[in-house]
Amino acid sequence: MPSIPHLSVSLLLLLVTACANGFSEEKKLLHSEILKDEAVARLFELGKVSDSEEFLERTFQSAASVRAGSLIRRWMEDAGLQTWVDQMGNVHGRHEGLNPREKALLMGSHLDTVIDAGVFDGALGIITALSALKVLKIKGMLGNLKRPVEVIAFSDEEGVRFQSTFLGSAAIAGVLPVSTLQVHDKRSVSLTEEVSLIESQNRLTIYDTSSGVTVQGSLRMNSIDISEENLLQLKYDPESVYGYVEVHIEQGPVLENVGLPLGLVKGIAGQTRLKVTVKGTQGHAGTVPMKMRRDPMAGAAELIVLLESLCNQPESFLSYDGQCAASAAQSLAGSLVCTVGEISTWPSASNVIPGQVTFTVDIRAMDDLGREAIIYEFSNRIHQICDKRSVLCFVERKHDADAVACDAELSSKLRSAVYAAVGPLSDDELLDMPVLMSGAGHDAMAMSHLTKVAMLFVRCRSGISHSPAEHVLNDDVWAAGMALLEFLESLV
Amino acid sequence: MPSIPHLSVSLLLLLVTACANGFSEEKKLLHSEILKDEAVARLFELGKVSDSEEFLERTFQSAASVRAGSLIRRWMEDAGLQTWVDQMGNVHGRHEGLNPREKALLMGSHLDTVIDAGVFDGALGIITALSALKVLKIKGMLGNLKRPVEVIAFSDEEGVRFQSTFLGSAAIAGVLPVSTLQVHDKRSVSLTEEVSLIESQNRLTIYDTSSGVTVQGSLRMNSIDISEENLLQLKYDPESVYGYVEVHIEQGPVLENVGLPLGLVKGIAGQTRLKVTVKGTQGHAGTVPMKMRRDPMAGAAELIVLLESLCNQPESFLSYDGQCAASAAQSLAGSLVCTVGEISTWPSASNVIPGQVTFTVDIRAMDDLGREAIIYEFSNRIHQICDKRSVLCFVERKHDADAVACDAELSSKLRSAVYAAVGPLSDDELLDMPVLMSGAGHDAMAMSHLTKVAMLFVRCRSGISHSPAEHVLNDDVWAAGMALLEFLESLV
Repeated sequence: MPSIPHLSVSLLLLLVTACANGFSEEKKLLHSEILKDEAVARLFELGKVSDSEEFLERTFQSAASVRAGSLIRRWMEDAGLQTWVDQMGNVHGRHEGLNPREKALLMGSHLDTVIDAGVFDGALGIITALSALKVLKIKGMLGNLKRPVEVIAFSDEEGVRFQSTFLGSAAIAGVLPVSTLQVHDKRSVSLTEEVSLIESQNRLTIYDTSSGVTVQGSLRMNSIDISEENLLQLKYDPESVYGYVEVHIEQGPVLENVGLPLGLVKGIAGQTRLKVTVKGTQGHAGTVPMKMRRDPMAGAAELIVLLESLCNQPESFLSYDGQCAASAAQSLAGSLVCTVGEISTWPSASNVIPGQVTFTVDIRAMDDLGREAIIYEFSNRIHQICDKRSVLCFVERKHDADAVACDAELSSKLRSAVYAAVGPLSDDELLDMPVLMSGAGHDAMAMSHLTKVAMLFVRCRSGISHSPAEHVLNDDVWAAGMALLEFLESLV
Repeated sequence: MPSIPHLSVSLLLLLVTACANGFSEEKKLLHSEILKDEAVARLFELGKVSDSEEFLERTFQSAASVRAGSLIRRWMEDAGLQTWVDQMGNVHGRHEGLNPREKALLMGSHLDTVIDAGVFDGALGIITALSALKVLKIKGMLGNLKRPVEVIAFSDEEGVRFQSTFLGSAAIAGVLPVSTLQVHDKRSVSLTEEVSLIESQNRLTIYDTSSGVTVQGSLRMNSIDISEENLLQLKYDPESVYGYVEVHIEQGPVLENVGLPLGLVKGIAGQTRLKVTVKGTQGHAGTVPMKMRRDPMAGAAELIVLLESLCNQPESFLSYDGQCAASAAQSLAGSLVCTVGEISTWPSASNVIPGQVTFTVDIRAMDDLGREAIIYEFSNRIHQICDKRSVLCFVERKHDADAVACDAELSSKLRSAVYAAVGPLSDDELLDMPVLMSGAGHDAMAMSHLTKVAMLFVRCRSGISHSPAEHVLNDDVWAAGMALLEFLESLV
């Protein structure tokens, strides 16, 4: 028996599977090479483009983000698209298809990352869209598209550098305030808070290692000149757009639990970000008796414990009226999540009772009214606790986004594409394809202000994201690419 | 009536007071000019020597600390002392008196400060000692001292830069481990924690804006070459030392409450500094359901709330045996103070559930056994809470110092000096001169390992210290200087 070379095993398997599913061997191999092998290789290649040598970090207009944009642009050209970078740093690749005047299908996701990120968050949506288009190009079908198709790699979704999410997609959707151009960057939260504290006392600071660059300045440093006027011009005409489709890792455990590679997204949870400041009396850790303290750290800790209780059991804190009370409470409890991700003290020395403590609060829920009720209840209780402790508390709303519903028609087409694509590729029974809510915000959230949106979630290991442990199976990358390919072919 | 020039009013008042108290006008004026006017001017002059333009900051071997050392050395020479800087950056000024072989009286305090400090903490003890010696010099009495007198401006008491207190005085007392020379500096706590976190994952970091200089390196940068061997040689021979006397602001509210400028210190509270690390599972703030979280921030908050309860009401948590139970509990509750001054999260982003939270704990009490009981109870409950939350918790002891009792004989001499000095200067009834415990650590704590110690506390406004609001009345500076002068004259 002749020895089977390394690659031949998978070829053989593919052959068997493809024949069993009625696919031609050639078609199957082509798809596998581009939608799986090349797509996965590109994900890891892009994942190496980082501002840190030790972990993955690409923030808005950083050197690595610019390099990542160039790489993606090359892949866009490889897929047969015309490319450009707009004045918010978004990278575009477009094919006009048969009818350049038809409403365009937009696809994509974001090219920025959090700090210490995984390689799939954002990148997966860009790369699967480009892979599917590349297959169309190879098949000679790109020119037959009934409407223009445009892939956009958005420049900012995570909001790490400027603490303002969706800089890229919000500009295109026309919902980015022009004042955002003047927002200054902050290197990290602990620094941020110290800086703002010091500024509030009309002091300069030696702690400010942030570069202090504005959004506008960061673009200028990369030779992109944006004014308020041309920011407004970045907005797409809603009449020119058919819809927006985004593939993204689930970032949650549901698909893995049900054992399926893809899920349809019903909607995206609403979010609020708060900044809570507790001001007490700074003092010597050894000389101020416990009873005489107005300690903002102990106060902040009590507030954080309260927040956790509130979000664990909202039904214990909120009162509902009417018939639907039980279901409303249950619905909120099912989706409500609250997080304190950043906290800082001033002056931050182990032997000084802090004068001030600041922390962030991230609250998300599918139910916008429920989220508001939680914020209202939390704010009320903050002031009760702060009064009791004789400390001053301030709650600032830094960001609000209502929940977004995905478009039924576009989602239905995406669902059909998934069945057509993944059915033949797998033994999974897709009759019960999961329909999920997204707890994470996505560019689709901003794009919903411009056009109808639909999203496809891809299974990720243990639901982990925003971490180097983030992982998607090669076959699931392939499944997502196949689904997009089927979806695009329906436009041919 | 002839006009009275500006200065004459105070001269007139002094005259009246001096005559009423039986002091010669000349002596009184001399004392006032040097012990009050010049001492206060020097306090504020030294308070301008800062590494920041906006607030007072002098950390171990910083540029401002070196400048401060030079200024103090000039003042030492002005007081007729022979001066030198030792290999830990301590500034010494000494007069041998009549009998160079006699045991020397050491006096002094520290020249470093916290960040955003007041001008009196540390500086007051150095400047009042020098002022008193300068008066002796002017009176021609310096050479008549029965024993050598040495003032030491210690290079580090606050421990801000290297998070290790008493670098200066511990070296002289011979209790500074030689390994301390290799400790690296940390710019601020939030940075520190991120850095150590990253180091623990074998990663370099772009967050590390600390200079990463060792104690040894920081001295070398100022042309001071210290080896382990000559660190050991810095230790004074206990047989060559008579005792150590330190004047310091009270940093608490007692003297102000009783309306007296000076108080005798009975002892210094014992201290423990802990570093508590809580490790959970890092994740996306939007996608991990509350019930599935292992959130170290919520865990840390619960621990901080627990610590506060424990220190507010130790009697509710500890069980005492025997007859003295009630008084032991009461004694502990009266002096126990617990502080969380620093806290940091990793990776510190508002939309990421932290993977790790680290915070400092500062625990002080007069009763060493009571302090140990609190640490034991806190540690036990930390592990219960962390088990319940399925997070990992680590408690490291970073610093321990037992309570120190001041020497009865030396304190008695200091008390007599206070009565002799302040009695004639004030109408205050000093029969009930307050005897205080110090909640703050002082160089006297380190020096107690070498020799007997005594301390004098000076009233400060509202008990505030470690803050620009720190304030001591000019007359109270004068009173402290007079007391030291009387004390020194008893050695003539």
